[in-house]
Amino acid sequence: MTVLQQQGAAAKVASYTLATAGTARKNAALEAIAKILTERQAEWLSANAEDVAAARGAGMRPAMLDRLTLTPERVAGIVDGVRQVITLPDPIGKADKTETRPNGLMISRRRVPLGVIAIIFEARPNVTVDAAALCLKSGNVCILRGGKEAIRSNRTVTALMREALKSAGLPEDCVSLVQDTSRETANELMHLDAFVDVLIPRGGAGLIRTVAKEASVPVIRTGEGVCHLYIDSEADLDMGAEILYNAKCSRPSVCNAAECVLVHEDVLEPFLQKAVPLLDRNHVELRCDGRALAVLGDRGVPAEESDWDAEYDDYILAVRTVKDMEEAIAFVNAHGTHHSESIITANYFKAQRFLDAVDAAAVYVNASTRFTDGGEFGLGAEIGISTQKMHARGPMGLEELTSCKYVIYGMGQVR
Amino acid sequence: MTVLQQQGAAAKVASYTLATAGTARKNAALEAIAKILTERQAEWLSANAEDVAAARGAGMRPAMLDRLTLTPERVAGIVDGVRQVITLPDPIGKADKTETRPNGLMISRRRVPLGVIAIIFEARPNVTVDAAALCLKSGNVCILRGGKEAIRSNRTVTALMREALKSAGLPEDCVSLVQDTSRETANELMHLDAFVDVLIPRGGAGLIRTVAKEASVPVIRTGEGVCHLYIDSEADLDMGAEILYNAKCSRPSVCNAAECVLVHEDVLEPFLQKAVPLLDRNHVELRCDGRALAVLGDRGVPAEESDWDAEYDDYILAVRTVKDMEEAIAFVNAHGTHHSESIITANYFKAQRFLDAVDAAAVYVNASTRFTDGGEFGLGAEIGISTQKMHARGPMGLEELTSCKYVIYGMGQVR
Repeated sequence: MTVLQQQGAAAKVASYTLATAGTARKNAALEAIAKILTERQAEWLSANAEDVAAARGAGMRPAMLDRLTLTPERVAGIVDGVRQVITLPDPIGKADKTETRPNGLMISRRRVPLGVIAIIFEARPNVTVDAAALCLKSGNVCILRGGKEAIRSNRTVTALMREALKSAGLPEDCVSLVQDTSRETANELMHLDAFVDVLIPRGGAGLIRTVAKEASVPVIRTGEGVCHLYIDSEADLDMGAEILYNAKCSRPSVCNAAECVLVHEDVLEPFLQKAVPLLDRNHVELRCDGRALAVLGDRGVPAEESDWDAEYDDYILAVRTVKDMEEAIAFVNAHGTHHSESIITANYFKAQRFLDAVDAAAVYVNASTRFTDGGEFGLGAEIGISTQKMHARGPMGLEELTSCKYVIYGMGQVR
Repeated sequence: MTVLQQQGAAAKVASYTLATAGTARKNAALEAIAKILTERQAEWLSANAEDVAAARGAGMRPAMLDRLTLTPERVAGIVDGVRQVITLPDPIGKADKTETRPNGLMISRRRVPLGVIAIIFEARPNVTVDAAALCLKSGNVCILRGGKEAIRSNRTVTALMREALKSAGLPEDCVSLVQDTSRETANELMHLDAFVDVLIPRGGAGLIRTVAKEASVPVIRTGEGVCHLYIDSEADLDMGAEILYNAKCSRPSVCNAAECVLVHEDVLEPFLQKAVPLLDRNHVELRCDGRALAVLGDRGVPAEESDWDAEYDDYILAVRTVKDMEEAIAFVNAHGTHHSESIITANYFKAQRFLDAVDAAAVYVNASTRFTDGGEFGLGAEIGISTQKMHARGPMGLEELTSCKYVIYGMGQVR
């Protein structure tokens, strides 16, 4: 067996213990993790400082360097996150249906863990702990594969978490790190069907598409967000401008930020007059169709065909004129990533039609797409936002990390 | 666009209409299908007679010929099946959580169709109608790709169903058949990501594995069943023998039939003395480990290594001795297909431990594995039995053919 196969096999064995470990023991392990990360944070911070120094030496951009960097405040935030996971209800063991059949069989459907979850992520050391905590609480073993830039931080924090697991009486293989950050090992992980039940990529669109394309293990696609706002002819235009400004500018790098505004032709000019001064605050670049460009003049630039499918993750917005709501719906279904879509309208029937007809994880009326988030939706922490229809859709909390098992109590029944 | 891409695009367009069609219209279409298949069954039967004649000419085995053949009685059974689907509750539109958040957003999670479901199946003409009816009721458009042996039957019945859909005011593209039954077209269907939301293979293990390996569209694996019965040292041996006989012999060709019995060493001899006379009725071949062979002598044959993973779908049974329940659990988790597993025991603690520790879609105590079935579990009709952990596990009824969508009612909220 290769090193990774051995790691997978050990994870699988640990998963059978963890699946039946019970809430109290899992919470005790989470508390042990919170404690060790607090008490021995100096080790983690020092490993991280080495990562940061190496990355700076290699010419990493400042924004990326910032994401890589840990501070005592950030560690405290991560530890708080672990303690929040302790307070969330444990989804495992709940029976979501139970029935006695006419032949006397008592059939119950129980929530069970998925088993072994592999997570491939980039250079954010907080993901290591967040993901491990969510997996642990939902009874899943995790195999973590972070980026090479964070390898020292990840090695240290994983070793600390494993020590905490052991002290709490759980197998240390409930959490493990892929030590080799080469592309070959990532590829091997994507094909570790014998041991990995689900693979969740966390990172940019490039990573997610590669994993979805390459992997033979089941993948949950998360975080691809080309989100739209449709400004209807009956919209409150002030509300629409405020929501657009929020959806585009409050945090443009995240997946629930808006990338494109569709404006009904009847309100094109007055809407842009209200929206542009807000967008000016962040110097948002406006890539426009011909009609919008005619209104905006020098303030806009002509859109290219590729702008209608672009995830900018930046202060750039595509602007397109539509003749009615049905055109907007068709456009959104064709060009969106089925993440989050919003209509601004005062018309009841249009609101309902938009909610019904748009094919996305979250569809809004008169609100910002930025709310698509586990915390905002009341799920507690999330492991990502699924943009697929199978298994889970939208923010994925603990319940979305489970499968089910039918248990059947018989008295000798045959068929 | 290729012919299949055009078919996929038309299916996608139809899916947006069907998704919001409402229960009454979907039921009317199902009733129209039941009616047309009854009134014009002569057309279907005559096309089927041509298929059967061609297959006989090509030397098809009698058992397969029988599966291919339609009779007026079988048509009546299929039509009854459609009418049963009408009586099942419509899962679409149900909100399974609804909440008003502190900021006033009202968030609701609704069940929605998956969209376009492709089904690849072999030469069973009944599957065409069963699958179409379940998809239609759950708001899903289906693209059916049957085997070439049934192509005339499938063309006729699909044309009739499309006529019925149209008469009920739904797009006829809600149901379509892949006209070309070549391997190339099947392969193209497996990669029709732009239009197909889910692919469900229905057929033998070979078909299912090929599809799961080749497809880039999401696949639901169904129907792979290497199921075990574990006879504990504290089993009621008469009950165990009856259950084994039922699990092996009541219908050996189906996926919930038992393929292997694991016997606790303390009861090996007395159990086999009770079980073998029952298995003799169907001349079940017994492929044994050394200890079982020592008891059975000429009645058994030595098992090869491959017998411990075999899905015989026939009157053949693997027999293996274990030293305790934990060995049985480990064996089942390593060699089963996570479909259906059963323990025979009078010991309460062992029963609970087996239910907890075995990783399968359905785990039984003192009952036959043959009960894993949508009808037996009270789901009504099923499209298959999922052996995967993602999305759905166990018998898949209408609910398992849905996804969800968050709908959010706002009053101008921004974040």
